[in-house]
Amino acid sequence: MSGFAGDPLLSALFGDAEIAGLTGSDAWAARMIEVEAGYAAALGRAGRVHPDLGDEAADAIRAVRPDLSALALGMARDGVAVPALVRQIKAALPERLHDAVHTGLTSQDVMDSAFALCLKAALPVFRGRIEAVQQALEALAAQFGDHPLMARTRMQAALPVTVAHRIEAWRRPFEDHLARLDALELRLLRLQFGGPVGARYLDQAEQINAALAAALGLSPVPSAWHSDRSALAELGGWLSLVSGSLGKIGQDIALMAQQGLDEIRLAGGGGSSAMAHKQNPVGAEVLVTLARANAARLGGLHQALVHEQERSGAAWSLEWMLLPQMLESTGRGLSLAFELLGQVERMGSPDET
Amino acid sequence: MSGFAGDPLLSALFGDAEIAGLTGSDAWAARMIEVEAGYAAALGRAGRVHPDLGDEAADAIRAVRPDLSALALGMARDGVAVPALVRQIKAALPERLHDAVHTGLTSQDVMDSAFALCLKAALPVFRGRIEAVQQALEALAAQFGDHPLMARTRMQAALPVTVAHRIEAWRRPFEDHLARLDALELRLLRLQFGGPVGARYLDQAEQINAALAAALGLSPVPSAWHSDRSALAELGGWLSLVSGSLGKIGQDIALMAQQGLDEIRLAGGGGSSAMAHKQNPVGAEVLVTLARANAARLGGLHQALVHEQERSGAAWSLEWMLLPQMLESTGRGLSLAFELLGQVERMGSPDET
Amino acid sequence: MSGFAGDPLLSALFGDAEIAGLTGSDAWAARMIEVEAGYAAALGRAGRVHPDLGDEAADAIRAVRPDLSALALGMARDGVAVPALVRQIKAALPERLHDAVHTGLTSQDVMDSAFALCLKAALPVFRGRIEAVQQALEALAAQFGDHPLMARTRMQAALPVTVAHRIEAWRRPFEDHLARLDALELRLLRLQFGGPVGARYLDQAEQINAALAAALGLSPVPSAWHSDRSALAELGGWLSLVSGSLGKIGQDIALMAQQGLDEIRLAGGGGSSAMAHKQNPVGAEVLVTLARANAARLGGLHQALVHEQERSGAAWSLEWMLLPQMLESTGRGLSLAFELLGQVERMGSPDET
Amino acid sequence: MSGFAGDPLLSALFGDAEIAGLTGSDAWAARMIEVEAGYAAALGRAGRVHPDLGDEAADAIRAVRPDLSALALGMARDGVAVPALVRQIKAALPERLHDAVHTGLTSQDVMDSAFALCLKAALPVFRGRIEAVQQALEALAAQFGDHPLMARTRMQAALPVTVAHRIEAWRRPFEDHLARLDALELRLLRLQFGGPVGARYLDQAEQINAALAAALGLSPVPSAWHSDRSALAELGGWLSLVSGSLGKIGQDIALMAQQGLDEIRLAGGGGSSAMAHKQNPVGAEVLVTLARANAARLGGLHQALVHEQERSGAAWSLEWMLLPQMLESTGRGLSLAFELLGQVERMGSPDET
Repeated sequence: MSGFAGDPLLSALFGDAEIAGLTGSDAWAARMIEVEAGYAAALGRAGRVHPDLGDEAADAIRAVRPDLSALALGMARDGVAVPALVRQIKAALPERLHDAVHTGLTSQDVMDSAFALCLKAALPVFRGRIEAVQQALEALAAQFGDHPLMARTRMQAALPVTVAHRIEAWRRPFEDHLARLDALELRLLRLQFGGPVGARYLDQAEQINAALAAALGLSPVPSAWHSDRSALAELGGWLSLVSGSLGKIGQDIALMAQQGLDEIRLAGGGGSSAMAHKQNPVGAEVLVTLARANAARLGGLHQALVHEQERSGAAWSLEWMLLPQMLESTGRGLSLAFELLGQVERMGSPDET
Repeated sequence: MSGFAGDPLLSALFGDAEIAGLTGSDAWAARMIEVEAGYAAALGRAGRVHPDLGDEAADAIRAVRPDLSALALGMARDGVAVPALVRQIKAALPERLHDAVHTGLTSQDVMDSAFALCLKAALPVFRGRIEAVQQALEALAAQFGDHPLMARTRMQAALPVTVAHRIEAWRRPFEDHLARLDALELRLLRLQFGGPVGARYLDQAEQINAALAAALGLSPVPSAWHSDRSALAELGGWLSLVSGSLGKIGQDIALMAQQGLDEIRLAGGGGSSAMAHKQNPVGAEVLVTLARANAARLGGLHQALVHEQERSGAAWSLEWMLLPQMLESTGRGLSLAFELLGQVERMGSPDET
Repeated sequence: MSGFAGDPLLSALFGDAEIAGLTGSDAWAARMIEVEAGYAAALGRAGRVHPDLGDEAADAIRAVRPDLSALALGMARDGVAVPALVRQIKAALPERLHDAVHTGLTSQDVMDSAFALCLKAALPVFRGRIEAVQQALEALAAQFGDHPLMARTRMQAALPVTVAHRIEAWRRPFEDHLARLDALELRLLRLQFGGPVGARYLDQAEQINAALAAALGLSPVPSAWHSDRSALAELGGWLSLVSGSLGKIGQDIALMAQQGLDEIRLAGGGGSSAMAHKQNPVGAEVLVTLARANAARLGGLHQALVHEQERSGAAWSLEWMLLPQMLESTGRGLSLAFELLGQVERMGSPDET
Repeated sequence: MSGFAGDPLLSALFGDAEIAGLTGSDAWAARMIEVEAGYAAALGRAGRVHPDLGDEAADAIRAVRPDLSALALGMARDGVAVPALVRQIKAALPERLHDAVHTGLTSQDVMDSAFALCLKAALPVFRGRIEAVQQALEALAAQFGDHPLMARTRMQAALPVTVAHRIEAWRRPFEDHLARLDALELRLLRLQFGGPVGARYLDQAEQINAALAAALGLSPVPSAWHSDRSALAELGGWLSLVSGSLGKIGQDIALMAQQGLDEIRLAGGGGSSAMAHKQNPVGAEVLVTLARANAARLGGLHQALVHEQERSGAAWSLEWMLLPQMLESTGRGLSLAFELLGQVERMGSPDET
């Protein structure tokens, strides 16, 4: 899944190539191949096919390079990419291996498990960037922490504090965000496995579940979560909490940079086509934009919790319209905040520094 | 804080008197008194006033019955209820106790801590209702679990399963919701304490922090979370996850009740003014309504994360407009689901049962 | 329908008693009586009952004072208030008039038409308040318009302008809002009339449609709009446009009031419990809060456009959860803005005035 | 501006190449060139530069092919594409023409006017597609209108109607949508022109305004709407009304297609990777998805109405994150609905037809 990668101007401002690379369609399709391969091997482990056949099929599946254009056509027709993908795999494999291909899986098993694998690669990137932002904040506090700053409540001058006080309020939420991520990962990095109507209807389902989970490095599940989208909605909430905390920093920096207050000095800053003297705190503003966009998308993502019956195409697809962009926006916000904090040349009331 | 309590027709359908009673303005104001009293005692414990004076003031404050109408006037003028509340308290106390009243606190300390106390009373109610819903689901599974049911994916008949399969998909999310609540409580039941510009500017802040937290049964905090609203936004997310899982049950029941499918039979059901034969699954539909309203409100609540500077009146107030109604909607959804599940007279395809 | 009327603290800050009085449950129920009375008369006009009988029934219905508590019980059971209301009416009328009561109507006809009548009373209030805000802005421009003000783009000083320039940007959107309201009223003040499954199935439907519309002062409709909620979603959009334009004024005033910029001086202002020197621009902040809450609710209201089949209880009820609060928030915003603009004692850079 | 163009799988399902081509970055940049060229000519018309020089510059500007990669770099740095675009233009033009390039314009003038030109090209496409959907509905009504269909209210069987009744409820909203579009176009196809701080500060502003508007085929404006984003928020509302009406059709079709009801038969339909017998009504479900995504985005777009001071980078950029995707989703919905309606092989209860 991916968001703005296709539009040059918007992706320059809002996009995140690394996150898009880990969670966009190319990555997703590659992970689907990985799931199908792991499944073939798991069928062997569980004795549904001969172990050698399973392993041979797994190796052959892993060698398939999915044709994205054909998958896209399948997506448009079937609403999911898996029927087309399975056709591609079968076309690439000798017929004697076909029994080990996809038998007993359903599209959602493949796409959700593959997306869990995308997250398995992407979440550490978020963690690393949060830590980098924390360190950048600590560095600023070390450098400017004892400078005086007017505390402002309801946008009005309250009493003088120090820069350290403000930075601490920026930094502390990220401690909680990391703790939240620890708990969330346990719920996100789960195998999806239920077959068309629940794995209990499959022979050796338990063994396949365990073997496939182990092969993919995901947690096995007691039953499929085809219609329980809570963990993904919770991920959206976490992404919005993080982009919200970044938006607060951005809003504060934009306010501090106002002429007349001059509580911060930034290197760089965007130029104006009309006023050569302007140094616009573009990065600070974009942090606010990303936060507000994510908050709105979160409101849509939670609509997808009303996921009817065993699988809803409408609700499931709604996740794809919103979650990838949330991932990219939060990723972009973290990089941008790190960059912006590195451009701070001074914090605190100017006359005192 | 409260939601629909004032409107008779809407509160009949969407309101939750118990939750409103625990989190509405009356409860909130009573908890503010509790915080002010605890603070007076904590000033004594910490040696900021004589311990006897602190305790005496605490007792006297506890005896104050807040005048809600005057607080409302204060709310309209000051945007917060605390200046008016402090005036009420001081008017009720002899002047020699005034030093122990509110000195060093700020409005947000009082209102946020009081709201944490409201949540301390309300969250167990949610927990209890979730457990009741789980039990109702288990009872249905015991009764009708082996009845056949057509699994439906993308609203289309897939393959036959059992009623137990569907009920298991309804029940499992609540296990995760309870685990989420455990973690969330740790972040929500926190003292708010920072004074006008951070407790570090107060003498004996650390001792007051510890004593006040102990008195109120909240966790002490290393520093105020005046501008970090993550835990409240996370609460909103949790409430929407729960109402979303209930909305999924409601949507499924409404679909099962369709004539032509007849996969469920419900006692009761709403009447129609025009068609005497109709038995409308009103409760099932309202579960969907509550879920969608909460999802939308969540999108607004996360906008309040962009909380500028040391305290934002605009962002803080936005929480008050949305979170109380989310609490009430989720509470209502849980009661309604429990009631609706109790009205099930049959589940599963009729011809087979 | 109504919003915060029940909670003293929240309604003090966010509520609007006049709008709640015109659109809340009491008004709504009274308008339902009016619709039922008009319908009895229309049945007579159309020859479905004897005209005298219709008029007599209409007069008798008009004399019924609805018992809100019983309606609330009915609302909880039936999801709509009309079955209980019809029972109340019939209990109050001699049986010989019962043929003229509600025969051929459905709940939605009554509740939607009654809500259209509520809007017919409320929309002129919005219009009047918008005009008052416009006049207040013109008065400020007349008084302070030639004062210098620093234009700010991206929160950075751009070039000096005048106060008139800023005020003109505040005022102009309301011209468009009034034009939008003209067009919107045509779509909102429509009779709802379709009976259980469409008026074409009723005898003399066309004559009843015309007579009832005339009696109520609403437009007749070619067919019922039971499942077409566009006009109500559009109303939500208009309310959010208006509160958004007010939120922009509030945000600007809060920014102008910052110490260090001092571009505005306000009389009044909220007090602080901790800092006696503070004059908080509470009204300006609340305008922002109301705007953001309405924007989020609008996202939920548009979810109700997916209104399945002939009538959806779930989608219809979602309107009730969101639209009344939007009405009240926009109403409150207009009053508050008018009040706030009246508190302006100076605008423009202080050193120049 | 554009949305999913970059992601092959998502754009296959949700994207609209025609709309993206008319409103995406390539089109937007080309329209910016058009605005800059028209402005050079308008400077000549107004006598700010010699008319021949203005025309010569206009021709030279029109010949510039913008380098999107360089614009993207500028976008990332400046938050807007115009400073980089003006540099490209000046680099391509002899220095003697530079006086006629961009003098007196600001970035927002260029980008907003260019986006109005994009809309000028795109809105007729929406109109045409709406008319096509209306005709497809009329054709269905002609073919199947007299077939019996069970009316369903609250998802329950009400009374029998005809297929024509249901189709009329699908079709009628689009009449209003077209009327809304007529009014909306007048507000959208407006020149943006104000210079850095309002055109009143420019010489010959009135003449330039008129000449530029005439050259571009947009309405001149009495003053810039830099901070009044109502018309764009209203456009978002209209897009969501249209996608909502389509979502209602999609939801109904998915419900009609349920086995056991069998009220519709569709040719085509998506395949399943696990169940060969399934014919999934993917298009119908995607209509619901698009409607819900647009509703959520609308909630975010209205947040951008709180547009501080003379120009807000944060609020303005938020429009770019949401509106292009709304355009594309509504466009996609219209095409998809047309296609889906063409696949209907039967409507109405099967036993009667």
